[in-house]
Amino acid sequence: MEVQKVLEEVLRRVKPSDGERERIRVAVNEVTSRLKGLEAEIHGSFAKDTWLSGDTDVDLFVFFPKALGKEYLSKEGLREILGRLEGMETRLAYAEHPYVIVRVDGIEIDVVPALRVESGDQAITAVDRTPFHTEYVREKLSDEGRDQVRLLKRFLKGIGVYGAEIKVLGFSGYVSELLVIGYGSFLEVLRSASDWKPPVKLVLEREGKEFESPLIIPDPVDPRRNAAAAVSLKSLATLSLASRYFLDRPSLDFFYPPPPGEQEVVGEVLVTQIKIEEPFVEDVLWGQLRKSVERIRTSLASSGFNVIDVGWCQDNDLKILVQLETSSVGDHYLGQGPPFYLRQSMGFLSSNERVWIGEDGRLYTIRRRKETDPNRIVAHSLSLKYKYSITQYQLKEAKDDCVRAFLRKRPLWLK
Amino acid sequence: MEVQKVLEEVLRRVKPSDGERERIRVAVNEVTSRLKGLEAEIHGSFAKDTWLSGDTDVDLFVFFPKALGKEYLSKEGLREILGRLEGMETRLAYAEHPYVIVRVDGIEIDVVPALRVESGDQAITAVDRTPFHTEYVREKLSDEGRDQVRLLKRFLKGIGVYGAEIKVLGFSGYVSELLVIGYGSFLEVLRSASDWKPPVKLVLEREGKEFESPLIIPDPVDPRRNAAAAVSLKSLATLSLASRYFLDRPSLDFFYPPPPGEQEVVGEVLVTQIKIEEPFVEDVLWGQLRKSVERIRTSLASSGFNVIDVGWCQDNDLKILVQLETSSVGDHYLGQGPPFYLRQSMGFLSSNERVWIGEDGRLYTIRRRKETDPNRIVAHSLSLKYKYSITQYQLKEAKDDCVRAFLRKRPLWLK
Repeated sequence: MEVQKVLEEVLRRVKPSDGERERIRVAVNEVTSRLKGLEAEIHGSFAKDTWLSGDTDVDLFVFFPKALGKEYLSKEGLREILGRLEGMETRLAYAEHPYVIVRVDGIEIDVVPALRVESGDQAITAVDRTPFHTEYVREKLSDEGRDQVRLLKRFLKGIGVYGAEIKVLGFSGYVSELLVIGYGSFLEVLRSASDWKPPVKLVLEREGKEFESPLIIPDPVDPRRNAAAAVSLKSLATLSLASRYFLDRPSLDFFYPPPPGEQEVVGEVLVTQIKIEEPFVEDVLWGQLRKSVERIRTSLASSGFNVIDVGWCQDNDLKILVQLETSSVGDHYLGQGPPFYLRQSMGFLSSNERVWIGEDGRLYTIRRRKETDPNRIVAHSLSLKYKYSITQYQLKEAKDDCVRAFLRKRPLWLK
Repeated sequence: MEVQKVLEEVLRRVKPSDGERERIRVAVNEVTSRLKGLEAEIHGSFAKDTWLSGDTDVDLFVFFPKALGKEYLSKEGLREILGRLEGMETRLAYAEHPYVIVRVDGIEIDVVPALRVESGDQAITAVDRTPFHTEYVREKLSDEGRDQVRLLKRFLKGIGVYGAEIKVLGFSGYVSELLVIGYGSFLEVLRSASDWKPPVKLVLEREGKEFESPLIIPDPVDPRRNAAAAVSLKSLATLSLASRYFLDRPSLDFFYPPPPGEQEVVGEVLVTQIKIEEPFVEDVLWGQLRKSVERIRTSLASSGFNVIDVGWCQDNDLKILVQLETSSVGDHYLGQGPPFYLRQSMGFLSSNERVWIGEDGRLYTIRRRKETDPNRIVAHSLSLKYKYSITQYQLKEAKDDCVRAFLRKRPLWLK
């Protein structure tokens, strides 16, 4: 398929219709009419007109005077908002501070309390910067530019690196907008990305300070902050390789990946199914999960297992997937000691039973493994601050797409 | 046991009696009487009076004029000797050149053809230097010194590092003599050895050139040659550690090690029993065996096996012993590819089926192992130039001391 045809088809799908736009506007008006007398403003991708059709998630900010301080937001501020929305379908959600999600006509509107500051670099909480982001993007993006952002967002979603949350560590909506502003168009972002070698730096207005990240984009409204700080090396690499591939062989698969299909289990795959047994903040949980996965990888390796891959799956439940070359290790292993000429070699000789001198003049010994059951190592390395329970089993057959994608390995956009 | 008591007891056992000395002299005379008119001379430890009681191996050299050249030795020289010894119990043996072993009254006498040269550094074959070695050692060693050499030789035998042949790569008789000459006594050799850190250098007369060996002793009669060139790092380390231990806890075990006793099989031990099916030169065979053992070690490791140790055994037959943490590896293994930003990453993506991007931005893949049977890997890595056949099995129980010593690991002198 020719690249222009692909992009036209994607745009046809992601550009909201006038009807959809109107439906959201009506829903938002219903909420803002309740907030009269408060400083309520629409921000986020709906305000910037860079949202994707079907992603009906609107950000409504309620600003309080800076002097009230950030503690005010999560207490009085939140109470005020909840009071005004009484009778509507609301629930609480948690980011840096709690906020309210209200549902109107199937549309979810996040009502977020924030502090009113005079410029981006005076932000006290992360959301205080938002009005300046909205203003900057509105000013810099033309109608055409907004569609280019839509293409890029859909592309990033398709290849699995959209979103700055810890689960993804990918490209936020704002970073997508900055990339299009910086490089000019969707295809120019891809052309540039296909040549990326980290660290990658994109300066739109002014440099701020030195950052240590794979991708560095000083926030135009607050250059002390790296807008792309969340982007992991893996996400950067994924965008770069997918860009090279797409430019070479454009296809809708990058935007709308096909399902992974049936997959053979290669090596041995151990599943640890996790049930979280109390309310949790998604980002906090994923932070703990990421750390646990790293610990699982290290512990298994240092216990003699050859690890192929460790991954996770989140659909109906949460699963950690450990793929090993084999799940059986010996009861004993080779232990290395000091070279003979170091004084500690005498202690090594005395304190080890089976000890010998190698061809290299070092001492060696045979040690008994403390743990040979990989499932127990996974269970011990898993550390979540929430109450949870686990079920462990060996994977024989993969029925859901999430596990199948883990087994497939090959990115879905790669034929 | 006090150190002096130990040494007295060892000397009592290793110092030949007058009767033994006389028996050998009679046997040697019987041979020399056949060699009248030829330049026959006794050399080696019997001539230097540093031999151990019971080691009735005498070197008798027959010198031919240098002008005849070294080809003469293995042809006419050898034929001449064989002719003179007709009717006696003789057989041929091979070192750098062939020589004759003649057996008289249970005593083996090596009759070695050599070239007469004017000084050690004019030697054409290795044995031409021998008369100068004999002369040097006789001049430098007192009666007391000769007993000190006997103690050192017995110690080196006891800890398994006596002999320069490829099987041992240890300390030759001549090196033992030079060590005592250099350091003064058996105990002084041990005191010095316990502080060794390679490379170790002992210069008795003059330095020759630069050598690259763990132990460097320029030959006093030919300083272009390192007399200790054969000593491996492992043998050096063994002498050093045994010396430290002996000085701390002297015992007869160092000179006369106890049998290893029954041993449990730890890990999995694969035995490859080798039958050599044609006449062979011991040193040539052991050169090939040592190389094979290194190849076995490398091949097993690169095929995913965790190797504890590879050793050998020589009693009734020749065995290679491979000790693994476990003999089972998976059918698949993790393959590492280039970082995403290198151009070859595209080729890696195209040419591998299961391929993914790691957290570190590198590409990875799953590969199928070519070989998962460790016995086949051992058989393929074994390469001897002689005709041979092998039998392979897994060790369940160790009955002979040689295999038991391999399983024990711990040196026999270590309680």
